[in-house]
Amino acid sequence: MTDTVKYVLDETHIPKHWYNIMADLPAPPPPVLHPGTKQPVGPDDLAPLFPMALIAQEVSTEREIEIPEPVREIYKQWRPSPLFRARRLEKALQTPAKIYYKYEGVSPAGSHKPNTAVAQAFYNKEAGIKKITTETGAGQWGSSLAFAGALFGIEIKVWMVRVSYNQKPYRRALMETYGATCIPSPSSETQSGKAVLAQNKDHPGSLGIAISEAVEVAATHDDTKYALGSVLNHVLTHQTVVGQEALLQLEMAGDYPDVLVGCTGGGSNFAGLAFPFIGAQLRGGKKVRVVAVEPAACPSLTRGKYAYDFGDTGHLTPLVKMHTLGSTFTPPGFHAGGLRYHGMAPLVSHCKELGLLEAVAYHQKECFAAGVQFARTEGILPAPEANHAVKGAIDEALRCKKEGKSQVILFNLCGHGHFDMQAYMDYFAGKLVDQNYDEAELAMALAGLPAAA
Amino acid sequence: MTDTVKYVLDETHIPKHWYNIMADLPAPPPPVLHPGTKQPVGPDDLAPLFPMALIAQEVSTEREIEIPEPVREIYKQWRPSPLFRARRLEKALQTPAKIYYKYEGVSPAGSHKPNTAVAQAFYNKEAGIKKITTETGAGQWGSSLAFAGALFGIEIKVWMVRVSYNQKPYRRALMETYGATCIPSPSSETQSGKAVLAQNKDHPGSLGIAISEAVEVAATHDDTKYALGSVLNHVLTHQTVVGQEALLQLEMAGDYPDVLVGCTGGGSNFAGLAFPFIGAQLRGGKKVRVVAVEPAACPSLTRGKYAYDFGDTGHLTPLVKMHTLGSTFTPPGFHAGGLRYHGMAPLVSHCKELGLLEAVAYHQKECFAAGVQFARTEGILPAPEANHAVKGAIDEALRCKKEGKSQVILFNLCGHGHFDMQAYMDYFAGKLVDQNYDEAELAMALAGLPAAA
Repeated sequence: MTDTVKYVLDETHIPKHWYNIMADLPAPPPPVLHPGTKQPVGPDDLAPLFPMALIAQEVSTEREIEIPEPVREIYKQWRPSPLFRARRLEKALQTPAKIYYKYEGVSPAGSHKPNTAVAQAFYNKEAGIKKITTETGAGQWGSSLAFAGALFGIEIKVWMVRVSYNQKPYRRALMETYGATCIPSPSSETQSGKAVLAQNKDHPGSLGIAISEAVEVAATHDDTKYALGSVLNHVLTHQTVVGQEALLQLEMAGDYPDVLVGCTGGGSNFAGLAFPFIGAQLRGGKKVRVVAVEPAACPSLTRGKYAYDFGDTGHLTPLVKMHTLGSTFTPPGFHAGGLRYHGMAPLVSHCKELGLLEAVAYHQKECFAAGVQFARTEGILPAPEANHAVKGAIDEALRCKKEGKSQVILFNLCGHGHFDMQAYMDYFAGKLVDQNYDEAELAMALAGLPAAA
Repeated sequence: MTDTVKYVLDETHIPKHWYNIMADLPAPPPPVLHPGTKQPVGPDDLAPLFPMALIAQEVSTEREIEIPEPVREIYKQWRPSPLFRARRLEKALQTPAKIYYKYEGVSPAGSHKPNTAVAQAFYNKEAGIKKITTETGAGQWGSSLAFAGALFGIEIKVWMVRVSYNQKPYRRALMETYGATCIPSPSSETQSGKAVLAQNKDHPGSLGIAISEAVEVAATHDDTKYALGSVLNHVLTHQTVVGQEALLQLEMAGDYPDVLVGCTGGGSNFAGLAFPFIGAQLRGGKKVRVVAVEPAACPSLTRGKYAYDFGDTGHLTPLVKMHTLGSTFTPPGFHAGGLRYHGMAPLVSHCKELGLLEAVAYHQKECFAAGVQFARTEGILPAPEANHAVKGAIDEALRCKKEGKSQVILFNLCGHGHFDMQAYMDYFAGKLVDQNYDEAELAMALAGLPAAA
């Protein structure tokens, strides 16, 4: 009953480089296009939004990108994060599989998001930027950037999807405690917001709209840049500290994963764990099955189209080729707010096309059931997003049991659920339903995708 | 801006013994008395409530009590907890003092409470106990025992103060997710609860009433024992893993505290940090100033009487000599629910009488201001209880600044505030008031104290 197996690294093992999978891919991903000219964007096109150091990372093909010492200094607060063997869960499942999980809930914001928030705040600070705008759904990203902004003395302004702003005041309170400003989106502070409000003054908002607002403000103010919490190459790259540490920790355990499982919204948490393992495989290392778990109500990888699309609803961003449900698609309001995005990171999408990963979609009730089983055996209460990975790992372990195989499964427990108790209450009260998107709306959103270049 | 200084121990440094300060005290604390006979209680009097192993610890005078291997196994999940130097806070305060803090928010329940919950669940399991009853205020203790119960397969039933049950549903949801049952107190399930409800069917409840209910059920059911989250000797002893680790970590840092600061409700968090240092001093080690910080609205150490009193409102518990505001005293409803107890642990009270510690009381607004400053510099958002220790440490650091002294300050950051965001929202909205207890009520409660033996 009581086995705890934890693999701990000291701070000298915090990675010194982020891993950039671009260096190892057999083919480069399709270029990012300017929405007007349909030509590949250059650094100057992105300069209004990001400091040049991050733009350089966005297009870099170097395998290793040095982590600046001040970023590693802050990482020390919670990194290296622990890797656990889920012995009690294994016993409950009576599986011959070994289940490992990397736990990112130990960060001050309670999730993996500070890994990139700190890096982005650092490069903006270096570039003399005073303010950063961003968007947030459930609030994990917004609170992480607020944390990083507080440490570097940068003003953070967060557009939070209005329905979440009203329903989930506690992540907002966390942002404000860190000193950030949080406003409900759509807002009357931007042209994008006003346009939406003109059509529907009670619009509940969406991540796509909130991105438009944050991007618009950054693009029109010289002292202000924009930060995104997922999707972009440099964000995924920053998260690779997770997978790099896991590689070392599994080496301590004398194991190597047969199966990797991560949940996918925009793709950064998933890529952070998976890319260092996929990269090792691409360089001739052991093959590993990589499983992306997404919500059945927002299934970009399993039901989306691989096409050029906008990252936002207001169509202010460049066009990126990705698995997308269409930028006009509004996912239903299920509880894993961090997974409610119409698209998927271009690099993750590209890996899917290259056959380097597979995807599976689950409904939320089965994910909460998995999360509760995990809490009662392993003792850690996962965030609703992380429950998708827990469910995926449990299903792999049960497959191993059926097949009599003692495989090694590794998943990323990307955050704790202490801010998400309402979702658990709804689950226990039988109020959770497995929402489905509107098939007609999805068909229309997919049909509306811009033609590929 | 970016200095993080963290002292990490590997799991071989999880203490192998709990430290029992009874062995080093110059005089033993006054005995616990039977409320009927006024004679010292024996093990048999306590046997209906606790397994014999815990009763033995309650009266032990051995310096070291071995931590069973299965308990250390579970401790591994989050122990040793990190010790940080608060460099960024020091800079913000421009103090010559060094501020260290031990962070207990890394446990699965987010506070120090699992240190004793796991131990108590273990000994009950060993004794063949199937069910444990307990009470909880804000819910930190209840959720920690629920966590421990899940790991050991023991049924946990928690009486939660009704006003908290209604106002703070999220800690309740955490208990239920771990599989525990949580019912509002006063309840109609007990004689104690019924008696209160008969006088006032809308009674908001109190910790003292909830204790009566939980004790009553344990005392009247053979398969059921009772667990308390603070106050008792064995609970304080279990928490000494905190201070023992801190001693080692400060040795790594090459420092020794001049001043120790902890917040006090029932006293276990405070004692957990302080007793190993006080013990070292009693055995001839360096003298350290020990400061207990309590809420001004429930000031047992600074305004209470050192007298024999009941631990509960229903007067079902034995009589213990402690600093108490009187068992009929109802503290106002401030946000640090974990500090809303009329008494103080007998061992902490005894140390106060021996001159081994001093006490100070703060109002909640100044504590929240300190917590916000801490969050914005150190990045971790403290629980409202922990904000009292933060405020105490900041004031000591400012004193050092005024006096030009470079002293070493150590405090215990006993939990994160992720479940307490409503309190921060109220603080920012200007809704928090510095509540005072009713002077007449306090006078009456103190006058009602039973005569000492």
